[in-house]
Amino acid sequence: MLDENENELVPGYAKILSGDGLPRIHNVPKKILIVGAGPAGLVAALLLKRAGHHVTIIEANGNRAGGRIKTFRAGGHEHARPPFADPKQYAEAGAMRIPESHPLVIGLIDKLGVKRRRFYLSDVDVQGQPVNHTWIAVNGLRVRRAEYARAPQAVNRSFGVPRAYWDIPSGRILDSVLDPVRDEFSVKGPNGARANKSVPDMLEGWTRIIQRFGDWSMYRFLTEHAKLDERTIELVGTLENLTSRLPLSFIHSFIDAALISPNTTFYELEGGTARLPDALLELVGDLVRFDRRATRIEYWDPGRGTSPIARVGPRGPHVWIDTVSEGRDGKVVREQFTGDCAILTVPFAGMRHIQITPLMSYSKRRAVTELHYDCGTKVLLEFSRRWWEFTEIDWRRELDAVRPGLYDDYRTAKEPGDGSLLGSHPSVPPGHISQAQRTHFAANRWVSREQPEAADVIGGGSVSDNANRFMFNPSHPVPGSDGGVVLASYSWADDALRWDALDEEARYPRALCGMQEVYGRRIEVFYTGVGRTQSWARDPYAYGEASVLLPGQHTVLFPAIATPEGPLYFAGDHTSLKPAWIEGAVESAVRVALEVHQA
Amino acid sequence: MLDENENELVPGYAKILSGDGLPRIHNVPKKILIVGAGPAGLVAALLLKRAGHHVTIIEANGNRAGGRIKTFRAGGHEHARPPFADPKQYAEAGAMRIPESHPLVIGLIDKLGVKRRRFYLSDVDVQGQPVNHTWIAVNGLRVRRAEYARAPQAVNRSFGVPRAYWDIPSGRILDSVLDPVRDEFSVKGPNGARANKSVPDMLEGWTRIIQRFGDWSMYRFLTEHAKLDERTIELVGTLENLTSRLPLSFIHSFIDAALISPNTTFYELEGGTARLPDALLELVGDLVRFDRRATRIEYWDPGRGTSPIARVGPRGPHVWIDTVSEGRDGKVVREQFTGDCAILTVPFAGMRHIQITPLMSYSKRRAVTELHYDCGTKVLLEFSRRWWEFTEIDWRRELDAVRPGLYDDYRTAKEPGDGSLLGSHPSVPPGHISQAQRTHFAANRWVSREQPEAADVIGGGSVSDNANRFMFNPSHPVPGSDGGVVLASYSWADDALRWDALDEEARYPRALCGMQEVYGRRIEVFYTGVGRTQSWARDPYAYGEASVLLPGQHTVLFPAIATPEGPLYFAGDHTSLKPAWIEGAVESAVRVALEVHQA
Repeated sequence: MLDENENELVPGYAKILSGDGLPRIHNVPKKILIVGAGPAGLVAALLLKRAGHHVTIIEANGNRAGGRIKTFRAGGHEHARPPFADPKQYAEAGAMRIPESHPLVIGLIDKLGVKRRRFYLSDVDVQGQPVNHTWIAVNGLRVRRAEYARAPQAVNRSFGVPRAYWDIPSGRILDSVLDPVRDEFSVKGPNGARANKSVPDMLEGWTRIIQRFGDWSMYRFLTEHAKLDERTIELVGTLENLTSRLPLSFIHSFIDAALISPNTTFYELEGGTARLPDALLELVGDLVRFDRRATRIEYWDPGRGTSPIARVGPRGPHVWIDTVSEGRDGKVVREQFTGDCAILTVPFAGMRHIQITPLMSYSKRRAVTELHYDCGTKVLLEFSRRWWEFTEIDWRRELDAVRPGLYDDYRTAKEPGDGSLLGSHPSVPPGHISQAQRTHFAANRWVSREQPEAADVIGGGSVSDNANRFMFNPSHPVPGSDGGVVLASYSWADDALRWDALDEEARYPRALCGMQEVYGRRIEVFYTGVGRTQSWARDPYAYGEASVLLPGQHTVLFPAIATPEGPLYFAGDHTSLKPAWIEGAVESAVRVALEVHQA
Repeated sequence: MLDENENELVPGYAKILSGDGLPRIHNVPKKILIVGAGPAGLVAALLLKRAGHHVTIIEANGNRAGGRIKTFRAGGHEHARPPFADPKQYAEAGAMRIPESHPLVIGLIDKLGVKRRRFYLSDVDVQGQPVNHTWIAVNGLRVRRAEYARAPQAVNRSFGVPRAYWDIPSGRILDSVLDPVRDEFSVKGPNGARANKSVPDMLEGWTRIIQRFGDWSMYRFLTEHAKLDERTIELVGTLENLTSRLPLSFIHSFIDAALISPNTTFYELEGGTARLPDALLELVGDLVRFDRRATRIEYWDPGRGTSPIARVGPRGPHVWIDTVSEGRDGKVVREQFTGDCAILTVPFAGMRHIQITPLMSYSKRRAVTELHYDCGTKVLLEFSRRWWEFTEIDWRRELDAVRPGLYDDYRTAKEPGDGSLLGSHPSVPPGHISQAQRTHFAANRWVSREQPEAADVIGGGSVSDNANRFMFNPSHPVPGSDGGVVLASYSWADDALRWDALDEEARYPRALCGMQEVYGRRIEVFYTGVGRTQSWARDPYAYGEASVLLPGQHTVLFPAIATPEGPLYFAGDHTSLKPAWIEGAVESAVRVALEVHQA
């Protein structure tokens, strides 16, 4: 993220975003087509519109902008119907947390007047102080995170790690092997916090890292370089969410591990992350043509020969984009758009299905073909009470409100297992749980005599080695609602693919069962019968959670991703070094707006 | 595949399958539950039933046995409705070819009286002689395979390979880097054919290969060991179908590359591969309980403690399997099955969602969690004529039968591009092409002035660097039908995932467009408007095409895959060294039947 003189680009980008806009230069306004109304497309449109250009955004989705910012909610710019039993409730299908170390997106949020607040990746008490009361549930054991940090031996030994690692928590084991690599570009202070070295030293350090490990997988790094044994890799992989991405690029997981730590401050947006596209649409909504899927792009570039349509020469339009409506509201419509240039923000996995004539450069085509997109799947379940915030006293009161003695029945495994207690709490609105659903839940229910004590946390989440893997509680209540929507399962790569084979309806009983394995059977009384799920790899607008590169792709493919092809320009988080993050999308939007504006 | 005395197991397995049956021993008949009615489950059931045991097969699918043997067809044991416009037509969603080097499955097919015939992986003439007239279409070039073998330079240079590789066909480049590894266990004869070394030498050779490359990816092998440059890897990867699996295990692709070569003889089954499960069901169909999805398994094993249900002790049943119906025909039903033991043939990706109590061994659980399953996706398109067998004379006759002059219009790109010519040949039965479909096809249609000459081949297929990747023509006509179903796209891993994001209906226009890029626009007149597609990764019974291991999994996970856990036994192709092949499933069936019978 340096310009040709090795100056950092982000401060300049931040100034452009925060109000300065694109530089004033004497140029003719261009007719610009932007494909994709995700954050990259919307922000680029905003900057280019303000600089006087004529912009049209082509979006395949019928009514929703935002791309992988997607909030299951009622209303919003997409006029969505309530997705949960409680119409006030909402939850994130996609982007849900924004690290404070991402200046561009945070500047943009504040500039647009969207309200942000803390997102608690780790659970806290009512004062917002970390308590680490959520669970680690692996190999048939269940311990609270704080307990694991104090006494990791039982969990570590359940993985069979060598004696040297019995008493070291997984996060510290991981740090101990990553720290020497971090030392290449940063210095650890006495308080444990890291400070980047000077820009030239940092650059040199990163160069050494890329040269050494650029085409390594995380698995190879952990085995060959860090010399960890398989059992320790499984411990660290399970607790620190590395396992499913072990075959993918070391660089990607290394950067993520630096960013997402218990010490990172994260934010979320009040009302849902979709408030960001809401705010952007207020400024550029008139430019968006919804329900137009790009199917074919032709462009005029004197160096590359012409295509059947592109015969007009330098005076006419230089880009033609064919689109088709999805036809959900009736007749399927074709429409062609023309422009002086186009900004393509669609993920390369999706661009693979767009014909582009004449052929783009060899390197770009390889990147479109091969850039790896990871799977990412979320399963959300709605509860009528925020039971994870309960103490045992709350549990007794609420369960005995269903019927006297139920609290003790759950503690002694005397409750019926036929699904009849599903959603049985008086707070659960009727009408969402069918008999078929009860049967499915009963057949899948977790069988155990164990009822762990109340979680008693705000926010944060548990980790499990069952199919759910990572579970997150909402950080804040929804005003006017006693319930909450829990992210019952968040998984990547192979972990996600195992969910993606299941139909949506089949996921909810399994996700509830996986939560019960961690929190106990009794949570079922608050389940409203409503879930929502998002498989990003199965999404016809996203084609994956994000680009997560394969070993070697950082050196072989990455350099070609963002370079223009004649009048075609490229943006989106995959063109940045922060894939999967809004920051990467916004950064790419400023970069591409500058390119187009100054061309 | 050796026993503890290093004798080869397959000849003994073949004898058991071909009629000898399991050894006669004095044991009490067991009550055996088999989960999954794929080839492993059906063959194990057959052997165990004949040995006098009481067998029940539990199958999640409502009416279809066969697992990843799946033929889109009318009738069959599943009483399927016609999947294509011509009710006689059929095509393979899964297993489609059986190499002659797989003795167990071939012996089984012959024993059962199922008819097999040649499957032409490479195209042939009417005498069945190879002609290699199908296309290689990459980087905007299009050459016939025979031409590429003779003069590879244009294609090779389009990838930018170094001068040393300009004149070597991709298959020979690949052989040159794999041959030294093959030399570890086999010897190349003067005619180029390889013969295995003696069993001890072969075993030693394989041991060296596993030690050296067991935790390598194919990408690492090609870069670090074979020292190929990136451009050459892209050439070989594109033409020899390695690219999408580069990050996966070297061992897997190495074994496949040895098996699937232009010299391998393959067979297919008359009437479709599903004739094999048809024949097996005639013998064990009474044992199968369809529409019963296993959701929970409990077992009694004195060493591992007990579960809430499993309190009966050594005299009662040792395995309890809870199932639930899918409820497609009405009420959802739960049913529990009990047995002395169980054989689990479900893919580990699916077993991840089955609760098993008490916990299985650590190694088994890791294998269930982590065993990698690859994506595999097929898109099939039906045509009313086998146009790939046409000469130019045939094309002129047939196109001019649509309307005079159309043949020349296609050759000079004068035909209308609005989709009106889709299925316009008189042989296409009416009623399958909607106006919406025409609009989608028009928006996606391949735009080019180029009409390559007639393919004029029987069987075989073309390779492309577009999203379709590999295309296969049927090897034989369907009796009574002038048409044929083409496998318009067969892809794996990331190539497949890019299709899996699309709904079924959205795939057909894109797949036709990809075929048109290779064969020219004119094929559209024969398209019946009917396609079928199979995403194995999205299939709720398969959870993936097959286990294709990640680097390291052969050494870390594989040893635990097939070992029993108390009264639970494991079979299926993933438990063999031939995953994805029926042979592996059958081999595992004999192995597990012996284990259970002799326990």
